[in-house]
Amino acid sequence: MNDASAILDATGGEVGLVAWQDYVHTAPFTCEGGGALTGFTLRYESYGRLNAERSNAILICHALSGDHHAAGVHDLNDRKTGWWNTMIGPGKPIDTNEYFVLSANCLGGCQGSTGPSSINPETGRRYSLDFPVVTIRDIVHAQKLLTEHLGIKRLHAVVGGSMGGMQVLQWMIEYPEDVRLALPMATTARQNAQAIAFNEVGRSAIMQDPEWQGGDYGEGQGPHVGLAIARMMAHITYLSDRGMDDKFGRKRQAAERARELFDIEFEVESYLRYQGKSFVNRFDANTYLYFTKALDRFDLYGKNGRLEDQLDAVQCKTLVIGFKSDWLFPPKQNREIAQALLRLGKHATYAEIDSDLGHDSFLVEAPELEALIRLFLKGS
Amino acid sequence: MNDASAILDATGGEVGLVAWQDYVHTAPFTCEGGGALTGFTLRYESYGRLNAERSNAILICHALSGDHHAAGVHDLNDRKTGWWNTMIGPGKPIDTNEYFVLSANCLGGCQGSTGPSSINPETGRRYSLDFPVVTIRDIVHAQKLLTEHLGIKRLHAVVGGSMGGMQVLQWMIEYPEDVRLALPMATTARQNAQAIAFNEVGRSAIMQDPEWQGGDYGEGQGPHVGLAIARMMAHITYLSDRGMDDKFGRKRQAAERARELFDIEFEVESYLRYQGKSFVNRFDANTYLYFTKALDRFDLYGKNGRLEDQLDAVQCKTLVIGFKSDWLFPPKQNREIAQALLRLGKHATYAEIDSDLGHDSFLVEAPELEALIRLFLKGS
Repeated sequence: MNDASAILDATGGEVGLVAWQDYVHTAPFTCEGGGALTGFTLRYESYGRLNAERSNAILICHALSGDHHAAGVHDLNDRKTGWWNTMIGPGKPIDTNEYFVLSANCLGGCQGSTGPSSINPETGRRYSLDFPVVTIRDIVHAQKLLTEHLGIKRLHAVVGGSMGGMQVLQWMIEYPEDVRLALPMATTARQNAQAIAFNEVGRSAIMQDPEWQGGDYGEGQGPHVGLAIARMMAHITYLSDRGMDDKFGRKRQAAERARELFDIEFEVESYLRYQGKSFVNRFDANTYLYFTKALDRFDLYGKNGRLEDQLDAVQCKTLVIGFKSDWLFPPKQNREIAQALLRLGKHATYAEIDSDLGHDSFLVEAPELEALIRLFLKGS
Repeated sequence: MNDASAILDATGGEVGLVAWQDYVHTAPFTCEGGGALTGFTLRYESYGRLNAERSNAILICHALSGDHHAAGVHDLNDRKTGWWNTMIGPGKPIDTNEYFVLSANCLGGCQGSTGPSSINPETGRRYSLDFPVVTIRDIVHAQKLLTEHLGIKRLHAVVGGSMGGMQVLQWMIEYPEDVRLALPMATTARQNAQAIAFNEVGRSAIMQDPEWQGGDYGEGQGPHVGLAIARMMAHITYLSDRGMDDKFGRKRQAAERARELFDIEFEVESYLRYQGKSFVNRFDANTYLYFTKALDRFDLYGKNGRLEDQLDAVQCKTLVIGFKSDWLFPPKQNREIAQALLRLGKHATYAEIDSDLGHDSFLVEAPELEALIRLFLKGS
């Protein structure tokens, strides 16, 4: 992807150079938990053209560590394309020749949208933990305001995996008339105890890092060690036992003395260290706290334990995709969503993809996944 | 177990009050990795009586966070019994009316056996990272010296789960003539990439805690935060998805504001915090580094990737037990051990227990497990 001509080659399926934009919402915004903002910014990108009827928009919802930059490059020197570049582009499954593809950094994020690392206009200082608690519903509410701002009444589709899948589910419930097709994948209608437990370990690592300072760290500062630990651990939950064996097995780097041995011996260790370190450079620790908490509080089963109570409002067609080796949000949790929709007489399908790549399967190029998405988006 | 009369009631199956002893090995001991000790101490306990033929000894091998205190209590005020008290006692599956049950804290440990927190007689200071790298083989070698010291030539059985199971496997290979029955459970013949990855995150949390100080912390000091994080994460891998849902689900404690929310909201979070904190009070961080490294380096498949090459020496009868919901050392990895033994024409059986309690299933009272162990130890 480092070859400029390839990146710019629209006939080769690339969206090429892209630029983000900011949507500035100037009215007060009250969060589900009761906290409020005097306004907010959502940073977003779009690929393809909105048609005259404004009926061809597809909203892409990102996962915990994702952002608005879903496809293309910002600069010809960029070594990395957007996080779903394999999926989005001219002729690709999410075809920018046909659709207007919209992708926004979530409210509470740290890639340009208003979040705990933004300046609170009321104090002139970073929000830090004064930022209101945000939920998946708040994130979706802010996305809805963006689509209204763009003059889009009804979305052709809402698509996302993991935390993005939760946003898709929330859209289905919250704005049933405004979604034609919904494509949640590698997700859950309710965060279970094990997933909460992993998030809690990550939060503990962050909050017990002395550099966290109660959340009041400055720009470029913060609990880098704790955030890297959190990311390393979480990264294991995004892969699979078999996938890790295939990729790393027990391959070693040279190390003999105790001090070196404990530091690094196996390649999988080196890989995880790298994942932790690079994450710290691009992600804010407080956003990690807010987003993992939004995940943990997500529960469409509600107090009655009946998913149907919430899904009863749904009007769109839904395709839920689960991945066989995903043990963070296993197939069962994805299947249950489609089953509840079917019990309600809704138009829903469940597809399970046999991949060894664990939870992250939805991010990886795979013909079967691409064919499923391409076909479903045609709305046939 | 807080009722003194019940604890002392041998007819009720309790070993009652027990005391540890120290075996002091005064000759030099060279480790597999080349490091050496001028001598070492193994702290151990025994339950039941060694018969005149010295043929009724069962060695219990403990897991990563275990110790020599496998059964009974040290004091009538003890609120907790030894870690396998459900299994060991008069009339229990490992029946102290019949067997002399021996349990030693592993070499490298922190509960009385020589380890990195012990004083190095050559310097008068704690070994810390000057302690030689120990392997499962070294741990077993030290156990062999203890049994020789006690005049036991041949063990009736060697029994252990998890890291204890690795020791059982090593005994089978290392001293084939000296083991009559072997009972490894919830274990593996080779630590795979995912298990190494989890250990690496734990080690990172410990070594990046500023209080670790390159391993040179004093008694009662050390990387308490990092060790607690490591333990919290590891603890999740000892349970199962379903087991955690059954035990905790999404039960909450009261918390509303962001700061409290991030601290603790769900019961599973509170449980994990407790596990982390209590571990720090009883375990040494450097031992955690040494033992997790011993786990990670354990690989009976060797360079040729053939488990049979190592197991060819085995002479004992073997029962391998796997647990259906164990995803740290899943059934497949346990089954493979029995299969390799059978391919070699050895006397081996594999049993799989359908438990929802994950890796820790072997530690929990369960009639099926107890019946299997009881029957197998009869050697029939």
